[in-house]
Amino acid sequence: MTKLRVHISTSLDGFVAGPGQSEQEPLGVGGESLHDWVVALEAWRQGHGEDGGEVNASTPVMQEKMAGLGAEIMGRGMFGPAGGGPWGDDPWPGWWGEDPPFHHPVFVVTHHDRAPRTLSDTTYTFVTDGIQSALDQAREAADGKDVLLSGGADVINQYLAAGLVDELELHVVPILLGGGSRLFEGVGPGVRLEQVRAVEAPGVTHLTYRVVSGGAS
Amino acid sequence: MTKLRVHISTSLDGFVAGPGQSEQEPLGVGGESLHDWVVALEAWRQGHGEDGGEVNASTPVMQEKMAGLGAEIMGRGMFGPAGGGPWGDDPWPGWWGEDPPFHHPVFVVTHHDRAPRTLSDTTYTFVTDGIQSALDQAREAADGKDVLLSGGADVINQYLAAGLVDELELHVVPILLGGGSRLFEGVGPGVRLEQVRAVEAPGVTHLTYRVVSGGAS
Repeated sequence: MTKLRVHISTSLDGFVAGPGQSEQEPLGVGGESLHDWVVALEAWRQGHGEDGGEVNASTPVMQEKMAGLGAEIMGRGMFGPAGGGPWGDDPWPGWWGEDPPFHHPVFVVTHHDRAPRTLSDTTYTFVTDGIQSALDQAREAADGKDVLLSGGADVINQYLAAGLVDELELHVVPILLGGGSRLFEGVGPGVRLEQVRAVEAPGVTHLTYRVVSGGAS
Repeated sequence: MTKLRVHISTSLDGFVAGPGQSEQEPLGVGGESLHDWVVALEAWRQGHGEDGGEVNASTPVMQEKMAGLGAEIMGRGMFGPAGGGPWGDDPWPGWWGEDPPFHHPVFVVTHHDRAPRTLSDTTYTFVTDGIQSALDQAREAADGKDVLLSGGADVINQYLAAGLVDELELHVVPILLGGGSRLFEGVGPGVRLEQVRAVEAPGVTHLTYRVVSGGAS
């Protein structure tokens, strides 16, 4: 059965992006530090065409994250800056440019209708009729593999509150951002979790939970 | 050198007590579940005069927490309900009654002046001239041992923001409370942490951080 999996880096005070997000600072003030642990990895650098990097306790966690994924869902804010839409004649290609690192179909939850766009081996499909529709389309595209829900906080919180997430992995980074996009905002006690594992690694701890019941569903 | 150590149970969404705290529900709605992992332990039950209980990966974490402690600081809200003060002729003895489980001096940060009170082998001292004074008094009482800062969120956040905490251990419980007393509120990015370790245990993960610089100090 295809699972909907969330994997996201969070500050210790619960933010997945810092305050003051903009086209210049898409992750907000201090938010880039959330990903220091992953960009240091050889496994990440190879996927982005770069040499070198570390092999450490985060490596198998990263490899498991990528294994068995058939499609991905993201929110409009993760795909592009607020000023980039509604979409014009020269549409925004996404933060990742002409050669995105996804290598599977990506479904963008948005209010702005837009034709699908294929860049290298990634096709972006823009879904305007809600999170359930995006999940249905991603599940079909994933063809038996899992679907990754990669961010940002708003869309993850919507899926959690609706009881649609199966697995949640938080990469907890030892920084305080003090503001920004807060994970779990509005999700509440109806969502029940089971702790699956905790992995200590340099500069990060990986916490994995199974969502056993939840939300409105 | 005497360290100021915070050890506190938190929900995955960052609350150390649930919403609607009252004399009947001092930890708020759902907040009791934050301590399920600890009250199940043999090490905790023995300290509270009860038989039975589990020995698991949380046991050494609990034992380390208790080792080397010479004094404790808590906030007014942890000591008693909001309706319990200002203090009268028949003063509130603290939630723990006539035989408190602390076995060392306790300093209560409060706005309400009150004479010290000794119950069994615990003396409560009420400090009305601020968190630095409470820390100075607790350090002196601890006589070279460490000082535990046990809660609630308000007083922990004040000490963190002032750069006075040396070590922070979070017992992260896989529940969402959706509201209540939020750890790190108002603390912000000036406080810098180093990850020390992560310990996976049944129903909880213990995350330990060293505070390497911080706050206003």
